[in-house]
Amino acid sequence: MVRWEPGARERLQAAALELFATRGFEQTTTAEIAQAVGLTERTFFRHFSDKREVLFIGQDLFLQAFLDGVDAAPPDAAPLEIVASALESAASFFPDDRRAYARTRQSVIDKNPALQERETHKLAGLATTVAQALRSRGVTEPAASLAAESGATVFGIAFAQWIREGEDGSLAAITAAVLHELKNLTRPGAASPR
Amino acid sequence: MVRWEPGARERLQAAALELFATRGFEQTTTAEIAQAVGLTERTFFRHFSDKREVLFIGQDLFLQAFLDGVDAAPPDAAPLEIVASALESAASFFPDDRRAYARTRQSVIDKNPALQERETHKLAGLATTVAQALRSRGVTEPAASLAAESGATVFGIAFAQWIREGEDGSLAAITAAVLHELKNLTRPGAASPR
Repeated sequence: MVRWEPGARERLQAAALELFATRGFEQTTTAEIAQAVGLTERTFFRHFSDKREVLFIGQDLFLQAFLDGVDAAPPDAAPLEIVASALESAASFFPDDRRAYARTRQSVIDKNPALQERETHKLAGLATTVAQALRSRGVTEPAASLAAESGATVFGIAFAQWIREGEDGSLAAITAAVLHELKNLTRPGAASPR
Repeated sequence: MVRWEPGARERLQAAALELFATRGFEQTTTAEIAQAVGLTERTFFRHFSDKREVLFIGQDLFLQAFLDGVDAAPPDAAPLEIVASALESAASFFPDDRRAYARTRQSVIDKNPALQERETHKLAGLATTVAQALRSRGVTEPAASLAAESGATVFGIAFAQWIREGEDGSLAAITAAVLHELKNLTRPGAASPR
């Protein structure tokens, strides 16, 4: 019999992250995660295939947010305008109330090479998928790959800034500022200190 | 007694690549590589620390070519002009007579996830090192990271094009064309088929 556990997934996710952060990812078992919120290990496995998945669940939705942004761009938009639309959509996926979670999650990943690798792999997959979406819109190569890779780079830099200790700007604002910097890389004098 | 073997390193490298390509990387032993060119396994280990190193040797020189290009840019150059100078220098590291070797090397790497991972890791390290060089020149963040990542992206796309079957343009010419496309990503209408 499968019982419905209200908010079980969210509670398991929060407990897992706390255990990963305090005790270490490798040192935490799925049984301990379940126990921490008064659930069984079996319930854990109804929600996640393994403890690693706790950290990566939702990435399909994130990718979809990116692709929705590609679709939302006007038909005659330049490649980088399409990417701007994708970034705006992706940024809205991370409102400020997710910042604390994102920060802790990153600290867990930074300590574990295998998790870092999976994260890098996921980001590379993002660029590949967005490049494909751009080509479907008629953007030719190498512009499609360049624009998609640039979008992933901008997002990565903006996200790292967003979760930095003391930062309180929204991800949307930071992403827009980083994209603006990208457009200004050709500006002579950008090399002089601000 | 260490005998000097004229061209031993080059002969070992050529033999190794041929064996990797025909027989598979995992299936090839260092003894077989040495034997293929009439040398001992001991001689192999005087030149390479392991068989994987055969594929990655010379990458420090490549990175240095990138950094020399950064240094060669005029003091008031915009970040992307500095990257253009770095790309030009890096491209000169791969004259056309290295194309066949590069093509075979890539086919070996494409078949082996562990080698792919090392390649990706090396390219990520390239971007990090170039960003550092840009900051040393006074380029501020996030411009330094954006420019360095863009340079790595341009190089990766250009290099893949350079080793594509049937391609006969020089790496320098292809790199310049891809960089030009990067600058044009903001151009409305770039999305229309050529």
